[in-house]
Amino acid sequence: MTAHTTKIRVRYAETDQMGVVYYANYLIWMEVARVEYCQAIGFRYKDMEQGDGILLAVAESHCRYLSPARFDDEVTVVTGVPEANRRFVTFEYEMRCDGRKLATGQTRHIYLSRQFRPVRLPDKYMGLFCTA
Amino acid sequence: MTAHTTKIRVRYAETDQMGVVYYANYLIWMEVARVEYCQAIGFRYKDMEQGDGILLAVAESHCRYLSPARFDDEVTVVTGVPEANRRFVTFEYEMRCDGRKLATGQTRHIYLSRQFRPVRLPDKYMGLFCTA
Amino acid sequence: MTAHTTKIRVRYAETDQMGVVYYANYLIWMEVARVEYCQAIGFRYKDMEQGDGILLAVAESHCRYLSPARFDDEVTVVTGVPEANRRFVTFEYEMRCDGRKLATGQTRHIYLSRQFRPVRLPDKYMGLFCTA
Amino acid sequence: MTAHTTKIRVRYAETDQMGVVYYANYLIWMEVARVEYCQAIGFRYKDMEQGDGILLAVAESHCRYLSPARFDDEVTVVTGVPEANRRFVTFEYEMRCDGRKLATGQTRHIYLSRQFRPVRLPDKYMGLFCTA
Repeated sequence: MTAHTTKIRVRYAETDQMGVVYYANYLIWMEVARVEYCQAIGFRYKDMEQGDGILLAVAESHCRYLSPARFDDEVTVVTGVPEANRRFVTFEYEMRCDGRKLATGQTRHIYLSRQFRPVRLPDKYMGLFCTA
Repeated sequence: MTAHTTKIRVRYAETDQMGVVYYANYLIWMEVARVEYCQAIGFRYKDMEQGDGILLAVAESHCRYLSPARFDDEVTVVTGVPEANRRFVTFEYEMRCDGRKLATGQTRHIYLSRQFRPVRLPDKYMGLFCTA
Repeated sequence: MTAHTTKIRVRYAETDQMGVVYYANYLIWMEVARVEYCQAIGFRYKDMEQGDGILLAVAESHCRYLSPARFDDEVTVVTGVPEANRRFVTFEYEMRCDGRKLATGQTRHIYLSRQFRPVRLPDKYMGLFCTA
Repeated sequence: MTAHTTKIRVRYAETDQMGVVYYANYLIWMEVARVEYCQAIGFRYKDMEQGDGILLAVAESHCRYLSPARFDDEVTVVTGVPEANRRFVTFEYEMRCDGRKLATGQTRHIYLSRQFRPVRLPDKYMGLFCTA
C-alpha cells in the first residue's frame, strides 16, 4: 500500500484557549492530506469533481487524539488507502510531530453524483486506488 | 434606519491560544447577523440565492477590535444598512457584551449572478433595503 | 439518562463548495451541544475550566454522516452521556433536521489539569454526570 | 521595505457554497503570511509570545476582495510592514493567483502583555521591524 506524506504548519487560527489545536481541525488536516494523496497516486481531486462530476462524500470520520499539537508545529500526516472498491473508499491517517504520535484517524467516503446520488467509481480512479 | 439585533454565544472553537476570540471569527458573526437582518426586513438570504440566483459577494470587509470576546460570552450584534443601491449594499455592525463594546465593522457587497457577473438588484429587494 | 436538546442554525461559513456543511463542522456542533449539556445538568463548562482548572480534553471523536445539512437549516442536536467515571466521560449526539437524521457521533474525553496531567474528576462533577 | 512571499494552497474547508473561498478565511491567510514574515525578518512569532510574553493583538483588519480564490488554487501572499513603532505595527498584504490579484488587506496590531495591558515593543523587535 502506498503511503503519502504531507507536511502541515499549525496555524494560530487552529489553536483554542486550551493552548493546543482544536479537535475539529484534525479533520481539516485529513482533508489536506487526502487531496495530496490523490495527487500523489495520479489524479487531482478537483478534476474528479469538476471533470467527472464525482464527489467524495464523507460517510464516517474517526480520530484518536494522543498528544496535543501546538501553534507553529510542523505536523507530518502519513496517509494510506487500506480499502477501495466501486462503492466506497477508506483513508487512514497518522499524524506526527518531532517523533511524537499526535493522532490517528480514518475517513470513509462514498461516491456521489452532483445530484447527490450514489454512483459507481469509474475504472480510471478504481485502477489508481487499487494499484497505489 | 432599521437596526436588527442578533445574539451569538461564543463557541470554544472560536477562541485561540491567546484565550480570546480569533479575529477572523468576527467576520463570521457579521455573516450570521447579516442573514438575520435580511430575514428581519422581509426576505430569506437563502431564497434570494436559490430562487433568484443573486449572490451577495463581499467586496470589502473592515473590523475594529476594541475589547476581546471570550468563550461562552453572549455577544450582541446590532446590524444596519447605511447604504443600498442597485449595484451594492453596505452593512454595518456593532458588537457588544455586558455593556462593553467589542468591535465595530462594515462589509460592502455587490450583487452577482450564479456566473459571477454583476447584476442590478431586483425591485423587490431594493424596496426592502430602502424602506428598512 | 438525561438528554439535552440544542438548536443550531447552519451558518454560510459552515458550508463548502459541495453546497452542504463541511464535515469537520459537525464536531464544532458537538462542542456547542456538549457545553449546553453541562449547563443543563448543573454546571458551566467555563467554570470547571477556570474555577477548578479541569480541562475536558478530547481523546476520541467519531461521526457518521447520514444526510447532508444545508445553509440556514435548523439542526437539532440531542446529547447524552452514556458513560462517565473518574477518568473519562463519553458524550453521544444525534443530529436531526426536519425529521431527517443528519448524523450521529460520540466524543470521549479525559480530565486534565492545566499542566495537561490526567486528574480524577472531583465529586461535585461526578455526581452531576451520574445523576443526570 | 522588505516584502516576504508566502504560498498557500486553498483547502476544501475554506470554500463555501458559492464555490469560492469564504471571506473570513483571507484573514487566516494574512495570519499565516504574518507569521512567516516575522520569521523572515529574524524572529519566530511563537518565541515573542512565549519567551517575552508579548502578544500581537489585532486592533483593526481590512480586506478588499477583487477576484475569487478557488479550491486547490495556489495563492501567493506578499506581505510588508509599512509602519512600525513602539506602540503598534501595521502589516499589509497582497494576494495573487496565476497573475490575478485576489485581494489586498491590512492589519494593525498593538502589543499586549499576557495580562492584556499595552506594552512598548522591546528594542530587539523594534530593530528587526525597522531595518526590514
